[in-house]
Amino acid sequence: MSVTAAKGFTAAGVAAGIRSDGAPDLALVVNHGPRQAAAGVFTSNRVKAAPVLWSRQVLRGGRVSAVVLNSGGANACTGPLGFQDTHATAEKVAEVLGHNAAEVAVCSTGLIGVRLPMDRLLPGIEKAAAGLSAHGGDRAAIAIRTTDTVYKTAVVEGAGWTVGGMAKGAGMLAPGLATVLVVLTTDADVESAELDAVLREATRTTFDRIDSDGCMSTNDTVLLLASGASGATPDREEFAEAVRTACEELARQLVGDAEGASKDIRVEVVNAASEDDAVEVGRAIARNNLLKCAVHGEDPNWGRVLSAIGTTSAAFEPDRLNVAVNGVWVCRNGFAGEDRELVDMRYREVRITADLAAGDASAVIWTNDLTADYVHENSDYSS
Amino acid sequence: MSVTAAKGFTAAGVAAGIRSDGAPDLALVVNHGPRQAAAGVFTSNRVKAAPVLWSRQVLRGGRVSAVVLNSGGANACTGPLGFQDTHATAEKVAEVLGHNAAEVAVCSTGLIGVRLPMDRLLPGIEKAAAGLSAHGGDRAAIAIRTTDTVYKTAVVEGAGWTVGGMAKGAGMLAPGLATVLVVLTTDADVESAELDAVLREATRTTFDRIDSDGCMSTNDTVLLLASGASGATPDREEFAEAVRTACEELARQLVGDAEGASKDIRVEVVNAASEDDAVEVGRAIARNNLLKCAVHGEDPNWGRVLSAIGTTSAAFEPDRLNVAVNGVWVCRNGFAGEDRELVDMRYREVRITADLAAGDASAVIWTNDLTADYVHENSDYSS
Repeated sequence: MSVTAAKGFTAAGVAAGIRSDGAPDLALVVNHGPRQAAAGVFTSNRVKAAPVLWSRQVLRGGRVSAVVLNSGGANACTGPLGFQDTHATAEKVAEVLGHNAAEVAVCSTGLIGVRLPMDRLLPGIEKAAAGLSAHGGDRAAIAIRTTDTVYKTAVVEGAGWTVGGMAKGAGMLAPGLATVLVVLTTDADVESAELDAVLREATRTTFDRIDSDGCMSTNDTVLLLASGASGATPDREEFAEAVRTACEELARQLVGDAEGASKDIRVEVVNAASEDDAVEVGRAIARNNLLKCAVHGEDPNWGRVLSAIGTTSAAFEPDRLNVAVNGVWVCRNGFAGEDRELVDMRYREVRITADLAAGDASAVIWTNDLTADYVHENSDYSS
Repeated sequence: MSVTAAKGFTAAGVAAGIRSDGAPDLALVVNHGPRQAAAGVFTSNRVKAAPVLWSRQVLRGGRVSAVVLNSGGANACTGPLGFQDTHATAEKVAEVLGHNAAEVAVCSTGLIGVRLPMDRLLPGIEKAAAGLSAHGGDRAAIAIRTTDTVYKTAVVEGAGWTVGGMAKGAGMLAPGLATVLVVLTTDADVESAELDAVLREATRTTFDRIDSDGCMSTNDTVLLLASGASGATPDREEFAEAVRTACEELARQLVGDAEGASKDIRVEVVNAASEDDAVEVGRAIARNNLLKCAVHGEDPNWGRVLSAIGTTSAAFEPDRLNVAVNGVWVCRNGFAGEDRELVDMRYREVRITADLAAGDASAVIWTNDLTADYVHENSDYSS
């Protein structure tokens, strides 16, 4: 159901011929109101794709009536003409739907540095608009995939209202502020300033804490649209928790489908002096290629965890560090602890716990192992 | 000739049985003076191995009479008993040679988190001392290898004096201050404060600018010993240039032998607002796994270069960035430039030039591609 689980939304996904393999590549999500409130967070990469520059401007108004998304091309690093392509895309959606282009958000994903085939994309918008349906959420989620092997959706039910969403992403997965392409919808009656606060807090502890391959995209976008069609004004805390849960479910699906990965690694940093310290250490561990190789080889290599922690500025003493792999404390007080033979790493999920013994803050970062398949996929595919 | 190219030094390399494969694993370098001046730089990883903690203390005195180095074990994350092992190693060298233990530097490399087999290491010191020779430099260089496929040495001749050296290193190759194990010797008559200044400047632009796999070791050590045996006091600039050249040659050999690599990548950042900016950008490019995969696939993927630059805090405007691969400017003003088909990437060395158009500072960072062989080597080998 994804983005059409909430009342007041229709969606469609079609094959416009942007992708050379003929797969669905164009999605449209429309908010029929009565409210058209919206919030968005975007990549903190300073090299931003044209659709990010455009949509960031649209979101400043706090209103989005429709979102058009394409795979098959990121429209990043395409210069002024690339920006004109994004503008023309929004104008076309506005024309077909009778909307205002300044309220149409645009998202693109795929190859960097290549112009979009506008002669296919614009007719595709007409086709998508003709196919809009209150049951079109899954088709939209399918159309935004690139190297994703599965489509990703989530639905969270509230008291008389619903939050639904879809996401794409499998590589270049290390958000700075947001990640990949995500559209969340709700029929709750919430104004844009509150949507914005809720979305920023939700992404901060979900998408922002995935670090699959350390590479930040030029196109990351997360949008949250509210139609108010349920007529229900939710409790603020309940609504924030629902949005956070939807983000967490989608983020978890992104890690589970990361390019070439054979393991999902949950890096939990505990007893840090601050949450910033915990995130810095978690990210340093998650980005350590040698550790990621070791996990691939099912080797509970705590020495590589310690050498990663040692590169950070977090508060800790080397001789008080403890590390557990899948619950076995293989490193205590900075040197060998329990027998590493006790660690069972056969399953896809691997849990690494780093205890800094410096306070009571914590954070969880999700990453993947580094595999020969990742190398093969990214040696062959220009993106 | 390595560390025995300069007059006043003897060296040896023996198989002490520390490595399970029976390969040479213990090296000894002795400075016979008349001067015994020394300087050293060490890893900036905050998790430091016992021999780093010991040798850093030794170097504070500015005098080193001997260096003992072992492969087969890093003696990192081994707690107080590991430090006692390093201390006992220095005491043994002092006893055998009739030196002061406080002037014996110790270096170790190999597995993290495992105690050294002192019952083999200590007799190995006696064996090495018995084999000391003015022609022992190569044997010492051979004995400090771990996954290195070749041994690495360099010799630079000055006006009546010589700088020689040896290095080991193939993985965990991303120094913060220094890298891996390196011993440089000279027979020039130079006092320790000048050695220190010359060595810091030389490593700053050589070893510090290798970033093979983004992983910083717990054991990185670079030592420079001066015997004064030539009787020649060199010109300061000439001496600094000789040390820098020796460091550069060894650094280049480290990149050329990096684990699993099929390409050596020279990332040059030009027209940066400051040298710090140039280094930050060069390192971000060098650490981008997706780009490293693309280079492995001989794909001149400038989009991944731009997305890496975009994660930095350096001064630049996205629409003024230029990128060349092997001399072909495939990206100009932030979008597609010359035809990427013109780029020939068949050879081992690949040159990436990033023009920030923001000033006149520059820097070169060396890295390697990311390969399936790197993954295999580091999934199978605990280090």
